[in-house]
Amino acid sequence: MYCHPKSFPILISLMLVFSLYGQSTQEVTPPDPYKVALGKTLFFDSRLSLDQSVSCHSCHTLIQAPNLKHPSGADSSRFSIGIFGRVGTRNTPTVWNVVERQRLFWDGRADSLEGQMTGPFTDPREMGMPSLKALVDRVKQIPGYLELFKKAFGSRDITFSRMSHAIAAFEKTLVTEHSLVEAFLNGNKEALKGDALLGWERFKRIGCISCHGAPTFSQKDYFQMFPIWNREELNYLYGFNRDKGRFTATGIPFDHHRWRIPSLKNIEITAPYFHNGATDDLETAIRIMGYAQLNRQLSKEDAILIKTFLLNLTGRIPIVSPPRLPE
Amino acid sequence: MYCHPKSFPILISLMLVFSLYGQSTQEVTPPDPYKVALGKTLFFDSRLSLDQSVSCHSCHTLIQAPNLKHPSGADSSRFSIGIFGRVGTRNTPTVWNVVERQRLFWDGRADSLEGQMTGPFTDPREMGMPSLKALVDRVKQIPGYLELFKKAFGSRDITFSRMSHAIAAFEKTLVTEHSLVEAFLNGNKEALKGDALLGWERFKRIGCISCHGAPTFSQKDYFQMFPIWNREELNYLYGFNRDKGRFTATGIPFDHHRWRIPSLKNIEITAPYFHNGATDDLETAIRIMGYAQLNRQLSKEDAILIKTFLLNLTGRIPIVSPPRLPE
Repeated sequence: MYCHPKSFPILISLMLVFSLYGQSTQEVTPPDPYKVALGKTLFFDSRLSLDQSVSCHSCHTLIQAPNLKHPSGADSSRFSIGIFGRVGTRNTPTVWNVVERQRLFWDGRADSLEGQMTGPFTDPREMGMPSLKALVDRVKQIPGYLELFKKAFGSRDITFSRMSHAIAAFEKTLVTEHSLVEAFLNGNKEALKGDALLGWERFKRIGCISCHGAPTFSQKDYFQMFPIWNREELNYLYGFNRDKGRFTATGIPFDHHRWRIPSLKNIEITAPYFHNGATDDLETAIRIMGYAQLNRQLSKEDAILIKTFLLNLTGRIPIVSPPRLPE
Repeated sequence: MYCHPKSFPILISLMLVFSLYGQSTQEVTPPDPYKVALGKTLFFDSRLSLDQSVSCHSCHTLIQAPNLKHPSGADSSRFSIGIFGRVGTRNTPTVWNVVERQRLFWDGRADSLEGQMTGPFTDPREMGMPSLKALVDRVKQIPGYLELFKKAFGSRDITFSRMSHAIAAFEKTLVTEHSLVEAFLNGNKEALKGDALLGWERFKRIGCISCHGAPTFSQKDYFQMFPIWNREELNYLYGFNRDKGRFTATGIPFDHHRWRIPSLKNIEITAPYFHNGATDDLETAIRIMGYAQLNRQLSKEDAILIKTFLLNLTGRIPIVSPPRLPE
């Protein structure tokens, strides 16, 4: 659904409709605590990688760590480090609020958390297991997991399907709520004031909201071209066009340089930004977006006001305690 | 000495001459250990700031700290935080190897460490003392300093001149040696290999060396326009031209947007870069320099090779132990 820039007004209207639609309440199934506990244990277990050095949590940090200002659900590097010190090729997205995503990965090639998981486990730059079977065998070698699987699923059978369901169940609990913007949108008109409130107005008027709609500040099942305005100097400075985006997953020419729209929730703590982690300065990121997506140079005032608004999208980060790993 | 870009070939030749000149051996006076010890104590003492929260070391970190990958001699933020949480206006330069600088501050307005020091002590955004007299009075209120001054200077008199000499004596010991590039330039031809060696060749051929000459990878007493090629999009993204540089110190129109040339030593650990800390990504910084100073878009290969070379400019960081502060 790539649209010529001239069709922006129509697009923006459509997106506002989608955005309202997105606010409808979802059905929520209460999580099974045993599945969640098993999933958390697997999430933190670096024995599930080829050289036993990398866990899901290595790149999706939930706990305060050195060299990390906040437990961002990702890490603070442009590209994460996998087994044998190998470097990834796209910036690690945060796992906070991943339950709100309909599509996973920057190119959206997975449509469920369970489906997403096969990627990192077997990617040679991430956890590098040669196959899902090898992964399951690795878990089977750790006797302590037998009881955890029995508690979660009723029998000691260890399968990838069970693993992925348990990890997904855990990940779905990773929610940050109570940001000031949420409070504001839920009716507390005092929650946003001054520059933050002005920033919200600019955010809407300038058009950021056309892709980053409330309440998720993303768009479900929706991909967008980036950069839309394919500026030579932006590509020179940041290399945005080196990665063909969704095209690498689908092979469809239409998908060249299209990307899943990232949510702006917790953007304060999830630097660096963009699929290649091009900058970790939020004001610069906002300027780049104005220039590359809306074909305009934002004023200093607009950029700062929007930044002030975005800083109010940080929710309360739950305290996650590390699990005891089975022997 | 602003030169029209067309005069670059001449400029580069001149700079190479200066660069060779810079290699001549300096006379070295062995530091007085008591002065150094006093200077170190003053450097770490946050009681010397108005609200007693900020020391020299608060912004010029020499010791591994949380949220800091390396003790960089600066901090890792765009702008440092002074008293009462006030935010600075220019990126903190590293104090490592400051003995090699002939001019201090981004705008070079001080020509000695002793002269530089009055700035941070009395700047309302930094340590905020109302006057040097108030500063000296503050030190006099700490009886433990009397003996330290006596050891260093032979009498218990506490003056700003003595303070600044002691702090400068300490700062002059903050030297990082033994980088691979130094080893290479000192004759160990094995010290730079492969991409690092190729990067050194590109660094010279492309013209980076015209301002960042060996062995300091800076230029003594020398200011340069930045950006030379005053590109709208660079200013939009990074706001480079918002700060008039040396003009703010001299008021001379010629000094508009001229800056002291920062040394590239330890650049790996001294992010973020530029007078306003515009980016902390070294590859982006290199691309910006090519674009803004040399009017060329570096190839991916050139940028990566130069980066690889620059990573070899990291010296051995001395272990600094925090002093015991007098009561």
